[in-house]
Amino acid sequence: MKRRDVIKGVGLGLAAGTAATLAKPAIAQSAPKLSWRLTSSFPKSLDTIYGAAEVFAKYVSEATDGNFRIQVFAAGEIVPGLQAADAASNGTVELCHTASYYYWGKDPTYALATAIPFGLNNRLMNAWLYHQGGTDLLNEFYATQNLYGLPAGNTGAQMGGWFRKEINSVADLQGVKMRIGGMAGKIIGKVGVVPQQIAGGDIYPALEKGTIDAAEWVGPYDDEKLGFVKVAKYYYYPGWWEGGPALHVLFNKGKWEELPKTYQAVCTAAAGYANVDMMAKYDALNPGAVRRLASSGAQLRAFNQDIMEACFNAAQETYNEIMASNAMFKKIYESMAAYRRDGYLWLQVSEYTYDTFMMIQQRNAKI
Amino acid sequence: MKRRDVIKGVGLGLAAGTAATLAKPAIAQSAPKLSWRLTSSFPKSLDTIYGAAEVFAKYVSEATDGNFRIQVFAAGEIVPGLQAADAASNGTVELCHTASYYYWGKDPTYALATAIPFGLNNRLMNAWLYHQGGTDLLNEFYATQNLYGLPAGNTGAQMGGWFRKEINSVADLQGVKMRIGGMAGKIIGKVGVVPQQIAGGDIYPALEKGTIDAAEWVGPYDDEKLGFVKVAKYYYYPGWWEGGPALHVLFNKGKWEELPKTYQAVCTAAAGYANVDMMAKYDALNPGAVRRLASSGAQLRAFNQDIMEACFNAAQETYNEIMASNAMFKKIYESMAAYRRDGYLWLQVSEYTYDTFMMIQQRNAKI
Repeated sequence: MKRRDVIKGVGLGLAAGTAATLAKPAIAQSAPKLSWRLTSSFPKSLDTIYGAAEVFAKYVSEATDGNFRIQVFAAGEIVPGLQAADAASNGTVELCHTASYYYWGKDPTYALATAIPFGLNNRLMNAWLYHQGGTDLLNEFYATQNLYGLPAGNTGAQMGGWFRKEINSVADLQGVKMRIGGMAGKIIGKVGVVPQQIAGGDIYPALEKGTIDAAEWVGPYDDEKLGFVKVAKYYYYPGWWEGGPALHVLFNKGKWEELPKTYQAVCTAAAGYANVDMMAKYDALNPGAVRRLASSGAQLRAFNQDIMEACFNAAQETYNEIMASNAMFKKIYESMAAYRRDGYLWLQVSEYTYDTFMMIQQRNAKI
Repeated sequence: MKRRDVIKGVGLGLAAGTAATLAKPAIAQSAPKLSWRLTSSFPKSLDTIYGAAEVFAKYVSEATDGNFRIQVFAAGEIVPGLQAADAASNGTVELCHTASYYYWGKDPTYALATAIPFGLNNRLMNAWLYHQGGTDLLNEFYATQNLYGLPAGNTGAQMGGWFRKEINSVADLQGVKMRIGGMAGKIIGKVGVVPQQIAGGDIYPALEKGTIDAAEWVGPYDDEKLGFVKVAKYYYYPGWWEGGPALHVLFNKGKWEELPKTYQAVCTAAAGYANVDMMAKYDALNPGAVRRLASSGAQLRAFNQDIMEACFNAAQETYNEIMASNAMFKKIYESMAAYRRDGYLWLQVSEYTYDTFMMIQQRNAKI
């Protein structure tokens, strides 16, 4: 029996006034008034990713009748975007909404929660997180960082970015100065690219001046806003370093544990809603953007098989290096990799065949 | 200001006893004790689909501290599975969890909420439902049926079913007696198949005796349990009639409208969680099942392009017939079809190219 029920049960045998007095702390216990701060790693201009934190906070508030309020702050309002997880970990804020791979330099295990090059697509990432032990494994790691994580968003496969010249071979990648961050930068560096770390707002002028030769950002809907098509018209795909990146809400571990079970359930459900809602929003907005970009002169190009394989081999080499010295990374990577093998076997049966037929119909203007 | 806040504000100026007395109805209003019944269209043995209703109910209960309890009943416990929506509509139960297309015979518009042949895959279905107006349009229709719907689950692209002989041409489909229901049965009938309506438990003996030549059910995980591989070894894909079927919780409209806004938000978030969770569970379980089926002798076969196109043309003909006399179907179909065109354009850029590469790696045992 829950404490609340005990108090109610006791109350029934007492005078009305006393029962009412006793009822108050019980209600306060199950539905305390809380006002928490969430720092996002993203600016408001990235309305799709930033918006996922707002969707999460909205459902938490509405589901608790306004008792549990989470105020969302854009990157830079409390701490810079790339310090969001630190701010949650050290208690500056109660939680953040972020791409865990931003912190891969601190420990590469962080990257497994979002995306690693040649990792899982959106469908498989969710399957691994929710039903192949992924979230539990990641929370074993997050606990060591004083964090607790819930999946809360996904972008789907991102684009490979904007290039000022065509890339037809691995040789064409040699010396290309490309804005690309994190583990992807390290891996693409192994095939000859010179990775550059540049903040979003500085990419356009760097491409325009030729300080850099290429830049990756997200996908059509977000990339369009930054106007890259005007200064680097070759738009490559796929973004093999981000096949299905998951966003997370990361709570300060102690704060999460202090939450009543009711609020933990509300947060879990709201994060699940935000997860499917963010992917849906990108899929709703990207088609129009890719059409507009194409009519503004973007030249869509696929990385060829040689390039993809060279990058794939560089990625495997990197994972083997990390696994040799990082047991937590190894344990979680191996869980992900085992499911990746099975998942891509399964998806190529019915799902891929159905999609292929529908894409042929689209190209033939039958749909 | 909310009524609850007004009452609290008033309370501050009064004697403690009075404030406590006034507080009670306000609390009752925002978090009433409710015990509702949900009838599922599915048996407990379909743990993945049936389980989505349980996941939904669990989060509703936990998020309301047990105040809003939804008891889940399997098909047949209150009403037969195919009467679930009627039971919610007429108030026998407050809500159901079902595949809306079961009711297409009453109005084909019902089918648009789940899947129509050559419709949207899982990703695009979510995008259309959440961010292309799909759910709002469907609720316009559901209102005419005294229902209110929330997406709550998806199976992904289903399989095309089990055949006792190989199907290499449209000619091979002539006269094939196939267990296949609903609108798909009507459409496949146009290309020569003789559709049969048979309940799940009766399919195996019918296939074994040769009373039927083929049967479709769901996908590897569910099909394995019914043992079809022993009596019809050719396992075809894709299930072009179910590219990404969405499940819904359908509420009695009046009951939904009576819910406090708080509980409506809880239901919406919990349904979103159940949606992503059910797809994830299928993707987690299907890979193992397809491997086991293959090693039990299942011969996987793709429907060829001729067969797919003949069925596609039959589907288009059917939609045109329905649209000529059903304005609501036409309005919702056209919204879906416009987005389908755009969505399949977008998915073939980065997503499909990424998946293709990863599937090649899988086939080459590189992952």
